[in-house]
Amino acid sequence: MSLISEKDVLVPLDVLADFRDDYIANYLRATQNSGRLMLFAGDQKIEHLNDDFYGDDIPEEDNDPEHLFKIAQNAEIGVFATQMGLLARYGMDYPDLAYLVKMNSKTHLVKTSQDDPYSGQLYSVDQLMEFKGNSKLNIVGIGYTIYLGSEYESDMLAEAAQLIYEAHRFGLLTVLWIYPRGQAVIDEKDSHLIAGATGVAACLNSDFVKVNAPRAKDGQDSAVLLKEAVQSAGRTKVVCAGGSNAAPEDFLKELYKQLNVSGAAGNATGRNIHQKSLEEAVRMCNAINALTVKRVPIEEAIKIYRGE
Amino acid sequence: MSLISEKDVLVPLDVLADFRDDYIANYLRATQNSGRLMLFAGDQKIEHLNDDFYGDDIPEEDNDPEHLFKIAQNAEIGVFATQMGLLARYGMDYPDLAYLVKMNSKTHLVKTSQDDPYSGQLYSVDQLMEFKGNSKLNIVGIGYTIYLGSEYESDMLAEAAQLIYEAHRFGLLTVLWIYPRGQAVIDEKDSHLIAGATGVAACLNSDFVKVNAPRAKDGQDSAVLLKEAVQSAGRTKVVCAGGSNAAPEDFLKELYKQLNVSGAAGNATGRNIHQKSLEEAVRMCNAINALTVKRVPIEEAIKIYRGE
Amino acid sequence: MSLISEKDVLVPLDVLADFRDDYIANYLRATQNSGRLMLFAGDQKIEHLNDDFYGDDIPEEDNDPEHLFKIAQNAEIGVFATQMGLLARYGMDYPDLAYLVKMNSKTHLVKTSQDDPYSGQLYSVDQLMEFKGNSKLNIVGIGYTIYLGSEYESDMLAEAAQLIYEAHRFGLLTVLWIYPRGQAVIDEKDSHLIAGATGVAACLNSDFVKVNAPRAKDGQDSAVLLKEAVQSAGRTKVVCAGGSNAAPEDFLKELYKQLNVSGAAGNATGRNIHQKSLEEAVRMCNAINALTVKRVPIEEAIKIYRGE
Amino acid sequence: MSLISEKDVLVPLDVLADFRDDYIANYLRATQNSGRLMLFAGDQKIEHLNDDFYGDDIPEEDNDPEHLFKIAQNAEIGVFATQMGLLARYGMDYPDLAYLVKMNSKTHLVKTSQDDPYSGQLYSVDQLMEFKGNSKLNIVGIGYTIYLGSEYESDMLAEAAQLIYEAHRFGLLTVLWIYPRGQAVIDEKDSHLIAGATGVAACLNSDFVKVNAPRAKDGQDSAVLLKEAVQSAGRTKVVCAGGSNAAPEDFLKELYKQLNVSGAAGNATGRNIHQKSLEEAVRMCNAINALTVKRVPIEEAIKIYRGE
Amino acid sequence: MSLISEKDVLVPLDVLADFRDDYIANYLRATQNSGRLMLFAGDQKIEHLNDDFYGDDIPEEDNDPEHLFKIAQNAEIGVFATQMGLLARYGMDYPDLAYLVKMNSKTHLVKTSQDDPYSGQLYSVDQLMEFKGNSKLNIVGIGYTIYLGSEYESDMLAEAAQLIYEAHRFGLLTVLWIYPRGQAVIDEKDSHLIAGATGVAACLNSDFVKVNAPRAKDGQDSAVLLKEAVQSAGRTKVVCAGGSNAAPEDFLKELYKQLNVSGAAGNATGRNIHQKSLEEAVRMCNAINALTVKRVPIEEAIKIYRGE
Repeated sequence: MSLISEKDVLVPLDVLADFRDDYIANYLRATQNSGRLMLFAGDQKIEHLNDDFYGDDIPEEDNDPEHLFKIAQNAEIGVFATQMGLLARYGMDYPDLAYLVKMNSKTHLVKTSQDDPYSGQLYSVDQLMEFKGNSKLNIVGIGYTIYLGSEYESDMLAEAAQLIYEAHRFGLLTVLWIYPRGQAVIDEKDSHLIAGATGVAACLNSDFVKVNAPRAKDGQDSAVLLKEAVQSAGRTKVVCAGGSNAAPEDFLKELYKQLNVSGAAGNATGRNIHQKSLEEAVRMCNAINALTVKRVPIEEAIKIYRGE
Repeated sequence: MSLISEKDVLVPLDVLADFRDDYIANYLRATQNSGRLMLFAGDQKIEHLNDDFYGDDIPEEDNDPEHLFKIAQNAEIGVFATQMGLLARYGMDYPDLAYLVKMNSKTHLVKTSQDDPYSGQLYSVDQLMEFKGNSKLNIVGIGYTIYLGSEYESDMLAEAAQLIYEAHRFGLLTVLWIYPRGQAVIDEKDSHLIAGATGVAACLNSDFVKVNAPRAKDGQDSAVLLKEAVQSAGRTKVVCAGGSNAAPEDFLKELYKQLNVSGAAGNATGRNIHQKSLEEAVRMCNAINALTVKRVPIEEAIKIYRGE
Repeated sequence: MSLISEKDVLVPLDVLADFRDDYIANYLRATQNSGRLMLFAGDQKIEHLNDDFYGDDIPEEDNDPEHLFKIAQNAEIGVFATQMGLLARYGMDYPDLAYLVKMNSKTHLVKTSQDDPYSGQLYSVDQLMEFKGNSKLNIVGIGYTIYLGSEYESDMLAEAAQLIYEAHRFGLLTVLWIYPRGQAVIDEKDSHLIAGATGVAACLNSDFVKVNAPRAKDGQDSAVLLKEAVQSAGRTKVVCAGGSNAAPEDFLKELYKQLNVSGAAGNATGRNIHQKSLEEAVRMCNAINALTVKRVPIEEAIKIYRGE
Repeated sequence: MSLISEKDVLVPLDVLADFRDDYIANYLRATQNSGRLMLFAGDQKIEHLNDDFYGDDIPEEDNDPEHLFKIAQNAEIGVFATQMGLLARYGMDYPDLAYLVKMNSKTHLVKTSQDDPYSGQLYSVDQLMEFKGNSKLNIVGIGYTIYLGSEYESDMLAEAAQLIYEAHRFGLLTVLWIYPRGQAVIDEKDSHLIAGATGVAACLNSDFVKVNAPRAKDGQDSAVLLKEAVQSAGRTKVVCAGGSNAAPEDFLKELYKQLNVSGAAGNATGRNIHQKSLEEAVRMCNAINALTVKRVPIEEAIKIYRGE
Repeated sequence: MSLISEKDVLVPLDVLADFRDDYIANYLRATQNSGRLMLFAGDQKIEHLNDDFYGDDIPEEDNDPEHLFKIAQNAEIGVFATQMGLLARYGMDYPDLAYLVKMNSKTHLVKTSQDDPYSGQLYSVDQLMEFKGNSKLNIVGIGYTIYLGSEYESDMLAEAAQLIYEAHRFGLLTVLWIYPRGQAVIDEKDSHLIAGATGVAACLNSDFVKVNAPRAKDGQDSAVLLKEAVQSAGRTKVVCAGGSNAAPEDFLKELYKQLNVSGAAGNATGRNIHQKSLEEAVRMCNAINALTVKRVPIEEAIKIYRGE
């Protein structure tokens, strides 16, 4: 495990002088002084409606929104990312968590075959800062999704540029979720296209960018392919989306390679955590966190998950 | 009957400190100190034009907008929900009612086969607060309709997020009407989809969400199906739409099950009330209110309706 | 003839306290202390381009915009309704008229078969109030057209709600022109649909609503059919559009029935007035005004028109 | 030649009291104390790209934007109309001209068969006034183009209404270019439709309106047909577009008839002036100006053009 | 080599008096006191995603965004143009460069066959000036791309007009990238159309305009054809886009002709520079700069590139 300190944090030039210390503190808190990000993603109640929370293979407790907060409370994580509305209704009972507010969301009802995707901004940064001040919650950053290649791309690029500029001014971290999607996009998980996406994040000055891992073709290795994207992102750090539910040990092995082969700086995981009982979800979180932040060997992470 | 007091009211964190007492007072007033909501819905003069107010089976007095106010005045209800315009013209004669202002409305003329539904915001919360102050009317909250799955979903999600944030700041309650609707929506009353809708309401931090009761298939029970939605809503409370006119006793039985089997926290009823003579409408209101707020057995509610 | 006084005027609750007296004065002036409205409509130079002002059966003087002002000056009317631009260029020579400013307008070039109708707002109420103050013209109210059932209905409902709220704040009267129109509208003059339109006006808190008289089918009487709309409008008063040019005595008889059978509170007439020589137009105005405001028998109105 | 003085200028009522003198001064300057307008139109570098400035029959000097300024400097004109950008880059060398700023512009690349025309506003009146103050240029008015009958008509009507209202407030003159155009428009030069266009200009309170001369059919005379439009414009004055390049003497004869038969109040000419050498262009300007402002006989104008 | 001094700089009239000196300083810095512009274009990470930075013929170091900054640091250039986001993350290590901020960007995923191009504004000039003040970076100007002939042309013309007006106010230079593109555009590189594009830049008052060199047909010479565009731009200076990767010596020869035959005032080159190793890229920059600013003979430029 290698720790960083205040002097290791690169503060972007759009952070106002009065908020440089806040930025550094937010960065260290979010990365647990490691420079790497373990993000527990909990924005799916809008993004996927109830599909991720109720069904045959999902424990009933996942259908209660508070399940997400209980996991975040009991496990080792960097930040818990969700919509501001949930924070306003549960945050009083979970005052010590580090939160990242997802600033836009859409449902998955309208498919790309009907219309290209657009996910609209729900709040302004000014409102978020007011909420942060009034609620006393420890909001360390914001998230925003861009569908690159959508016919509404220009709206999302502009909203993202504005949100990042405003969030940085007040010392907040930023994470972009970037997914190439739309009629114009043939292969959403093409490694070269994903490297384009992380480059866009760099040009928009995001601190982190969450992308899907590339799809490997013909004997390729997804983690090797991801290196292009890590490099093209430059000083913007890449974290991989956890994606749909996978066998836990496979998931951890893939993450290990993303961190250690690709050079990714963390992960953003939702379903692979919360679609488990609280106790198992906590073990899964801790295993992910150990890989990401404590840089343990894969065998140790698997033991943590197994509760051994 | 179980009463709640000030300390039982969970105040969301977006309520400004100066308005916490107002929020609590509005909550207790709207729920009649029960935590459950009997909402008399009177926004249909725009939503359904004159179809709900004039016709063979509708008493003539229902064609006069004041019929709605007379019912609200004479019956036991929690809040009367309608557009701000009607309040401005009748409120001086009904100064003691608790009002919930419906902030958007559309007619039913354009069908989904022609264009996906969008219902636009008519006023800002700042205007509403100015109106409340000048009119001295007891406006305790706002309502807003979202058509989830519409191609205009992003507009409505953003307006709803903004309205709820601003309304809460000033201590107002919020009720979302959420109906999945649009070309992309196959079954508007699918229980799983409705559970998605209530989850969206939770993420938007609404105090209450009004949804249609799920359609039961193959021997299922709608009230049992609704449990998924009540649970996925978490701390946001679910009330069911009254829907089109039903036989009063059937209606009351269904409501009883929603309250006592599904765990719903109330009802939002319009046509099943106002498409009756004033005297019968008042009895119907009182029966609904007795079930909802006073938690009487179904038999007693039916007696109230019958005037026994 | 029955007169009303200040105490008979119902002041809507969105009128600011400082402007209640202005509202009452505007109301009494516009209705000539009768509570009924004789509105001379002169907004057709945009709405119908030159079709209403030039042609075989139209006197040449109607082609000069000042013809409208001359009629308004010499006849008995309640208010003269037109665009603010014409007021700015002719008002200095007609300083004593009561004006109602039509706040939106469109031409008739694009037909519904090509695109649904939208008529956009031209000025804000703040600009109107500034203009009123600077010009010293006696502007007593505003007008706005909504095409209900158009795909742009939501834009017009929102603009109307905002304009009425702002106009009332400053004590101005409001008149909505509501026409169901668009691909979705099968029968624009269906009596039940028109009753829906006047109900919308009530929900938007307009003082008056101008609609087309219903089309009578199979032995029905249009004036009887209109009663549904008058009742559904509640405290919002209904005035009928004059429509295309009719034989003057037929026109007066129809108006008489609208006032005395349907319960309409006035009329809004354009072409049936201005497509006449000044002298005949003045007689026509006076006949209409006598029916509307002075409540004379039909025979007397016809004599006034005939100059007997 | 008949001159007017300050007292002859009708000041519209939307001119603020502090700017009445400015309005009068601008009006007299623009019309050279004649009440008639000789407008040299130089906005085609956007409207027609380089088609009007380069080609076989066009002298090479016309390809330099400064050609326009040189003509305006050396000839007798009322105002030179062009985009604000050109003024900012050449105005320091031509400080004594009277300028009219064209506030919107579009290219001709997208044809009506592809999409209806919309020409968007480039600057606000506040920016224009700031620019006028800082640059010390003598900007006497603004221009704006409306495509009546376009599907974007409502946008242009609203922008025009706003621009005229704001421009008048500060004492600036206004000229509307109105062209019926779009899928809905069968005959752009129908005399009756053009009379509709000038009527719209009156309702929008423009000081001048520039239209195309009507197309004459079957032995009709365009100048006679134009009388309908001059009359329907009322107190708004009509000037005709010069149109595409014509034989100079034919052009002058047609203009003579527009002024003396139709009652037009001037002209707005571009290509018929600038597609000539500087020396010839100056003679052409002077001939046009003599007809328009000095009211000379046609023979004298032709002599001026010929340099006799 | 011919140098210019402060008095040779034409300051547009929209520059505020307090910022005239800044404008002159920015102009001299950007043109290296030559009046000619060597612009190193580095906005392709959004415009072309990773296609320009990764591939068989591209050195691996080009995949790191910092490659662009290293080139700009080590070579002789006028300005380095890129998005503000990259400046905020790398500028602290490259504080002495002259930067030009590209204010809009889009990806190339959606092709014109699917939808016409629109590239939306990402930041306001006010934000840029705030960023400049806080970051202490030497930002000398802005860039903006217009797709002329796109169905979204009006949006881009308006954004460009606003950005140039606001940028000039504060003494910033402006460069427009103008590319005719869209369904309506048959030949994007038609010389006459490109001359139209530079004329638009003149009307919008841009200091520089970047266009593609015309495509030569049938024995024509592109550099000769470009003369039309240089002339039609008037006082706005024309620079040519470097375009896709060409053989270096061919590239330099073509540039030499653009400068010395066409009268272009510089170049804007991206891929022909950065798709090389740092050392070769620096030599290429220096050769381009020598041609552009030092006005060396072509042979000397080639020697510089060869490192001779």
